[in-house]
Amino acid sequence: MSDFSPLISDLIQEFSKLPGIGRKSASRLAFHILDAPLEEVTRLAEAILKAKKGIRLCRECCNFTEDELCSICANPRRDRSVICVVETPRDLSAMERIHEYKGLYHVLHGVISPMQDRGPENLKLRELLNRLQVHEEVQELIIATNPTVEGEATALYLARLLKPSGIRCTRIAHGLPMGSDIEYADEATLARALSGRQEL
Amino acid sequence: MSDFSPLISDLIQEFSKLPGIGRKSASRLAFHILDAPLEEVTRLAEAILKAKKGIRLCRECCNFTEDELCSICANPRRDRSVICVVETPRDLSAMERIHEYKGLYHVLHGVISPMQDRGPENLKLRELLNRLQVHEEVQELIIATNPTVEGEATALYLARLLKPSGIRCTRIAHGLPMGSDIEYADEATLARALSGRQEL
Repeated sequence: MSDFSPLISDLIQEFSKLPGIGRKSASRLAFHILDAPLEEVTRLAEAILKAKKGIRLCRECCNFTEDELCSICANPRRDRSVICVVETPRDLSAMERIHEYKGLYHVLHGVISPMQDRGPENLKLRELLNRLQVHEEVQELIIATNPTVEGEATALYLARLLKPSGIRCTRIAHGLPMGSDIEYADEATLARALSGRQEL
Repeated sequence: MSDFSPLISDLIQEFSKLPGIGRKSASRLAFHILDAPLEEVTRLAEAILKAKKGIRLCRECCNFTEDELCSICANPRRDRSVICVVETPRDLSAMERIHEYKGLYHVLHGVISPMQDRGPENLKLRELLNRLQVHEEVQELIIATNPTVEGEATALYLARLLKPSGIRCTRIAHGLPMGSDIEYADEATLARALSGRQEL
């Protein structure tokens, strides 16, 4: 790409550091920037910096927020006796989209992953334990980490950690996704679906 | 997505205006921005603004450049008797990647497209005509617009426009792409491959 001028190369370079953006997409984005109106480009650059500088973690649940408390923790109508533990703020927003869950959340900001050199100390676990000590009304912790090796390990670690506290720890169900086909389901999912069967 | 705070929603909104970035990718990019180190994010925002503000069109060929002339027009070793006409700076860089062409370029910045309300006056045609008048050494114009309806129409328009000048106008070959399969080629491509056959 030696025929690009340095400013364009730099821009392509920066775009290609983003997740899911390869070299080709990065150059498409860069050329879009050069073609787009200056106001639109300025709005994008400002939105990036403003979000980065204006967003912090909620004092209670570690979700992203602009204020000290996120809108969920600040909402008096949420059920304060249940906390749903998720890996990331994106998982939180996926849970919110089902419009069924009325409790609070706790965002771990990661999972235990020895491969990536991430132990329990890298997660927002201390914040969770402090929270449980302060708010004695919490009765159930729904562990909604991903159904991956790391997510499962984190769920087990958390359940064991909280055993002495006597708080009920539950795990979201694993099984066949709606609309899927038993014929094409993988063995692990099918095994979980069978062992997790429920009375009709 | 009402559970996102305004700064995050704004950022997702801006990202989703980029080409090839849907709502889901935009939110993934936004959350990446929030997780990434501040320096990295600042570098991205600055690269966007710097490229947008620092890049202009080459005085000669209308390619993107930081200086008055682009590196190709400024290169004394390029053959000034041939000009390859392309639609976009990205097409120019694709041509450069083959490392075979040693002439100059002219970037039209678009094609004639009545559907998109783009006529010849929206292209960098006047710049091309001026250039041909000033530089009498130009002997051949290779028209390398895309093999689409609009690209073909633009090529024909250009050839007709330049007929009185006596400059030779050529069109890049259409035919089967290397490594492809005749069995799966579309009719239009195969017809072009046949009519464009050459002596072995």
